[in-house]
Amino acid sequence: MSNSTREPGSESEKNGESRQAHEASSTNAATAETAGRADWRRALFHPRSVAIYGASDDPAKTSGRPVPFLHKAGYRGKIYPINSRRDTVQGERAWPSIAALPEVPEHVYILAPTEAVIDAVDECGRAGVSVVTILASGFSEAGAEGLARDDKLREISHRTGVRIVGPSSLGLVNVAAHLVLSANAAFAEPDMPGGKIFVASHSGSMIGALVSRGKERGIGFAGLVSVGNEVDLGIGEICAATLDDPEIGGYLLFLETLRRADAIRDFALGAAARGKPVIAYKLGRSAQAAGLAVSHTGALAGEDDVTDAFLKDCGIARVDTLEGLIEGLPLLSRVAPRSANTPRQRRVGVVTTTGGGAAMVVDQLGVRGVTVQKPSTETFEKLTAAGVQVSEGTIVDLTLAGTRYTVMKATLDVMMAAPEFDLVVAVVGSSARYHPDLAVRPILDSIDGPKPLVAFLVPEAHAALVTLAQAGVPAFRTPEACADVIAAAFARCVPRPANSLARNVPPDGADRMLDEMEAYALLDRIGVPHAAAVAVDAVNGAPNVALAYPMVAKVLSAAIAHKTDVGGVVLGIRDAQELARALVQIRENVARHLPQAPVERILLQSMEKSLGEVLVGYRVDPQVGPIVMLAAGGVLTEIYRDRSMRMAPVDLDTAREMIGEVKALQALAGYRGKPAGDLEAVATALVALSQLACHPELNVVEAEINPLLVRHAGEGVLAVDALVRLG
Amino acid sequence: MSNSTREPGSESEKNGESRQAHEASSTNAATAETAGRADWRRALFHPRSVAIYGASDDPAKTSGRPVPFLHKAGYRGKIYPINSRRDTVQGERAWPSIAALPEVPEHVYILAPTEAVIDAVDECGRAGVSVVTILASGFSEAGAEGLARDDKLREISHRTGVRIVGPSSLGLVNVAAHLVLSANAAFAEPDMPGGKIFVASHSGSMIGALVSRGKERGIGFAGLVSVGNEVDLGIGEICAATLDDPEIGGYLLFLETLRRADAIRDFALGAAARGKPVIAYKLGRSAQAAGLAVSHTGALAGEDDVTDAFLKDCGIARVDTLEGLIEGLPLLSRVAPRSANTPRQRRVGVVTTTGGGAAMVVDQLGVRGVTVQKPSTETFEKLTAAGVQVSEGTIVDLTLAGTRYTVMKATLDVMMAAPEFDLVVAVVGSSARYHPDLAVRPILDSIDGPKPLVAFLVPEAHAALVTLAQAGVPAFRTPEACADVIAAAFARCVPRPANSLARNVPPDGADRMLDEMEAYALLDRIGVPHAAAVAVDAVNGAPNVALAYPMVAKVLSAAIAHKTDVGGVVLGIRDAQELARALVQIRENVARHLPQAPVERILLQSMEKSLGEVLVGYRVDPQVGPIVMLAAGGVLTEIYRDRSMRMAPVDLDTAREMIGEVKALQALAGYRGKPAGDLEAVATALVALSQLACHPELNVVEAEINPLLVRHAGEGVLAVDALVRLG
Repeated sequence: MSNSTREPGSESEKNGESRQAHEASSTNAATAETAGRADWRRALFHPRSVAIYGASDDPAKTSGRPVPFLHKAGYRGKIYPINSRRDTVQGERAWPSIAALPEVPEHVYILAPTEAVIDAVDECGRAGVSVVTILASGFSEAGAEGLARDDKLREISHRTGVRIVGPSSLGLVNVAAHLVLSANAAFAEPDMPGGKIFVASHSGSMIGALVSRGKERGIGFAGLVSVGNEVDLGIGEICAATLDDPEIGGYLLFLETLRRADAIRDFALGAAARGKPVIAYKLGRSAQAAGLAVSHTGALAGEDDVTDAFLKDCGIARVDTLEGLIEGLPLLSRVAPRSANTPRQRRVGVVTTTGGGAAMVVDQLGVRGVTVQKPSTETFEKLTAAGVQVSEGTIVDLTLAGTRYTVMKATLDVMMAAPEFDLVVAVVGSSARYHPDLAVRPILDSIDGPKPLVAFLVPEAHAALVTLAQAGVPAFRTPEACADVIAAAFARCVPRPANSLARNVPPDGADRMLDEMEAYALLDRIGVPHAAAVAVDAVNGAPNVALAYPMVAKVLSAAIAHKTDVGGVVLGIRDAQELARALVQIRENVARHLPQAPVERILLQSMEKSLGEVLVGYRVDPQVGPIVMLAAGGVLTEIYRDRSMRMAPVDLDTAREMIGEVKALQALAGYRGKPAGDLEAVATALVALSQLACHPELNVVEAEINPLLVRHAGEGVLAVDALVRLG
Repeated sequence: MSNSTREPGSESEKNGESRQAHEASSTNAATAETAGRADWRRALFHPRSVAIYGASDDPAKTSGRPVPFLHKAGYRGKIYPINSRRDTVQGERAWPSIAALPEVPEHVYILAPTEAVIDAVDECGRAGVSVVTILASGFSEAGAEGLARDDKLREISHRTGVRIVGPSSLGLVNVAAHLVLSANAAFAEPDMPGGKIFVASHSGSMIGALVSRGKERGIGFAGLVSVGNEVDLGIGEICAATLDDPEIGGYLLFLETLRRADAIRDFALGAAARGKPVIAYKLGRSAQAAGLAVSHTGALAGEDDVTDAFLKDCGIARVDTLEGLIEGLPLLSRVAPRSANTPRQRRVGVVTTTGGGAAMVVDQLGVRGVTVQKPSTETFEKLTAAGVQVSEGTIVDLTLAGTRYTVMKATLDVMMAAPEFDLVVAVVGSSARYHPDLAVRPILDSIDGPKPLVAFLVPEAHAALVTLAQAGVPAFRTPEACADVIAAAFARCVPRPANSLARNVPPDGADRMLDEMEAYALLDRIGVPHAAAVAVDAVNGAPNVALAYPMVAKVLSAAIAHKTDVGGVVLGIRDAQELARALVQIRENVARHLPQAPVERILLQSMEKSLGEVLVGYRVDPQVGPIVMLAAGGVLTEIYRDRSMRMAPVDLDTAREMIGEVKALQALAGYRGKPAGDLEAVATALVALSQLACHPELNVVEAEINPLLVRHAGEGVLAVDALVRLG
């Protein structure tokens, strides 16, 4: 990894003049500038000097590891062990404090126990250290006391300009700079596999696990960082600092939570601009793991589909398997992310020497909604013309003949050129183990063809996997990881430019609900159709209201969110007499349930017929920002959690895609000869609602239309209830 | 593997007197008896002599492999290469035909091309060979011509008594007998890992892949068989023949389809009786793979949830991951299958040295509905008393302290004794790689505790995995496989005794539909409540029908399955006048749609109110037998495919379990304060309907009640429509 901001050692940098323009927007910029400390971006991964604060004399202890790791890695900068109780540490001179050092170290790894961390960081900050990385835990994950420690760290950072990695960070590694500033035992191992992947992980132990698993697979790394609890520098900022490093080809994120989503988005945009794919494994697919993340990392756990929407919007490919995370980047490098308005790629051709092995991949692709495409008649003709004998099935099963180079190569040539496939999977049987060179060669010779080519090896075939991995060929050792990564690659989109996004985060407290009439006024403004509504005096009524019967009457009050629960709704009012009775009834019901809230106004609407109903919602998520949601209405869709989410705003194509993702809406799409609903109008309403994200002046924090009635195709949609909360 | 039926070499066996009693029930018994051939069960895996029919002189060819494989494996019986065109094969004497041999070989592996197979089998059968295994493909998977070849093979088997493995069989292996009768290149490899697992696979190449993947993991095999297309002997018969082999501890099935389900059930019952678990991976989770199985193996692909119901009923644990298939048996050996009426076990305790690694397992368990249980206060107190310092979270995260033997062992001691866990997972971090002995020892020392203990190793940790595997400890290398197998182990039931099952397979053709009145009579007989119904003359009507209005009128005819489609239903009839009009309307509608089927009778029912409705169904599946199904009614549940299936009959506990599996039925279980439906009555109706399986004399092939109305709790259920088809 080379210096990401500029050439190391340039003069201008030393006196702080070279700090990048966007440093100015950082909270610490002013302080850092005046302190004249080294740019934290360089000091993070290319420090010219490091101090190990609390280095132990015992190499078997965690705090005894970083010093020998640095030496073994061949780090060429200055290393200062700090230990106030010893003159030497593992045979080297130890220093009693930062102040005692002959120079200000650029990066300090603090191994001190929790209680001593604050003072150590303060000492570093005052001395002019650029970056400290903190090993200790006991911060945001440790209740009120821990949160107070967090605040203290932030205060020191703001005051002194020192930037912080961690707490709970097992450190970081930059292979090219020979920097192993880590207490992770994994780095005691020789032959750290070098490569193009940069790893950022909330979990410190996972960076070690990824290195060992990668090594076994011939997959290597340019750098790694254990970001810990992200009290200051988070995954987004840290990864962004490495974007221009030519040693890095792609990013691998192990996420336990999402903190500072904006910085992650900035990083993702930068990565996309440089053609560097980002793959992520995010804990929290199940509610019980989401709960765990809260206790383990001290972070708030958002809903998993909010995370999904955010990562998708950032063009970050999310995988569900650990093996897929490790094996996925080579394929992402070869499948271009989808731009808005381009059709979704998802047709896979499969060629194999083993039908049973290939069927596993086909099954796993099917489970993930990826289509395995039968070759066209023309493709079979071309195969025949190329001398390949194969029966006309969904997969091209060459059987044992496919172990011959010429047969497999000729088949791949035809399939890589066939227009019916977006991607080709070669499933290789026992030859991958017994003749790795022979089995792998046709794949190596075809990899630079006009479309992505992927290999799945059915037997244990270590040598073949390593050969493929080292040649950058997407290769997988389980059918699950193979299908997982293919599905994630097809789903990946070009990230949204940040300037198209509103980033209005809701202020704390002081929310205000709109009443239903006010909510309809807002819908009018953004262009979502709603049923005509008239507000009448709850006592005097309105004998000449210009609405058709049958009618519905609802209590009109911003203070009552759940009108039905307080008896505030009467349906099916057939005439003026029933209407008068309904008004009385609502007044009495509400008075009984909420004696403190006298009913002043009542809203009347004509009852509307429809084919079905949906729920559309908008809200500003405190972690990721504005979100738009579509779900089918009613209790069943709540049970199935059948919904689609995206970051707002969305365009019409995305809205249509969302409709396709809500299974229940098949029932409104002409399912089994039933009449079709106006789903195009649903899409238009979704787009309109999502535009709230572009109007921060409206200050809408949450808006839910439930239900939005869906009428026959061509007849549109109609909101018949709406809840709106302002910030 | 030792001889499964009796001691090899006993005199009585040689002259055919010792054949087991149940051989007499085999189709081939009489012929085999008179031919005096060896028992096929012994000849299959313990032949005293083998012939390789079509052995090639070229060891690089597929047909050149079996002879050297047998020698290399140290097979001690006689080996006869048969090759009519050569005097020698790979330096050995070759024989021109079976007839030319000095003795009748007990088992012949036929490597001849497809066209020559029939004659070869006929030659073997006439000579008195016990078993032939056929390599060639081109049979049931190859259209009409192939099916004709299948028929011919069956005819030869019936006529001569020879039993057949294959076609499309890559052969079989019996490690203890030094028998490698296979053309799979995998067996060229030295150091075949010996072990306790017997593998049966539809896919021939997968047996090689399983051996190599097992070898890498320290997992070994007692025997393997590639069953091919199962024209005669299938997976069930072949595995059953090995049941008493003391070398075999469990069975691993790779299934592409289900053939002869009864034989599989017999085998599964035998395995359960001997405490030998059976694990299966079955292709067909997605519709596209199911389609593939048809073309690849020539078998009919059933619905995946029928397969699920069948395997569950047989006590076969189905896993969804390839790694889980390979790694799963040790855990199945330690989790007793659930008996009827015993509560479901599903609470897992997790202890770890790495929070991030453990969270992956927690997440994957959550996705599969397995609960990770927080330790009780008492358990935390015991941990403290044992000197273990740990914060009180859902998982017991020992962090680095857990790498010390004493800490991990003390923690496991407490957790293995804690009543709140059904199973304990130890998630081991980097120490598994760097100090495999140390990291693994506390687990090895705790494995024989009072409950199952499972290890997941987060880094690549080959030595530790092999040590654990060889000690029989359930150990996993991916979080997905770990969770997959735990879920499968918890779901596994004791198989149903065969005598409690009806095995009435529907006859072909000549089905008869019952009309709705006849169907209600059947429901009366089995005890499913239905709405009162009166049949009236379609022309004259019935002015004094004793039913309350509003009423529904439906055309009554066994010939009309979809009454609504022909205008044969009128709802909401409020009085005698409307009823008279309805009868006319139905006559006219049906006459217009189906002029050939004049309406003679019309069925009347009172309209019934309900909280909701479900669909209950029964059918005799041609592959697995009687099935009972529960689904919520309506279009949405069709879209979600939200249903539960079991083999019929079911008891009340199973019926309740089925209700729990249909998500939509949460809406009738008092969801969010809504009134609860009479789900207990649904369970009773399911039990009653499933009893059709116990009445073969009723000859019901299919019965569907849609809808079964569900009324308020305590008010019961009511069938208001029913379709019944007799065989």
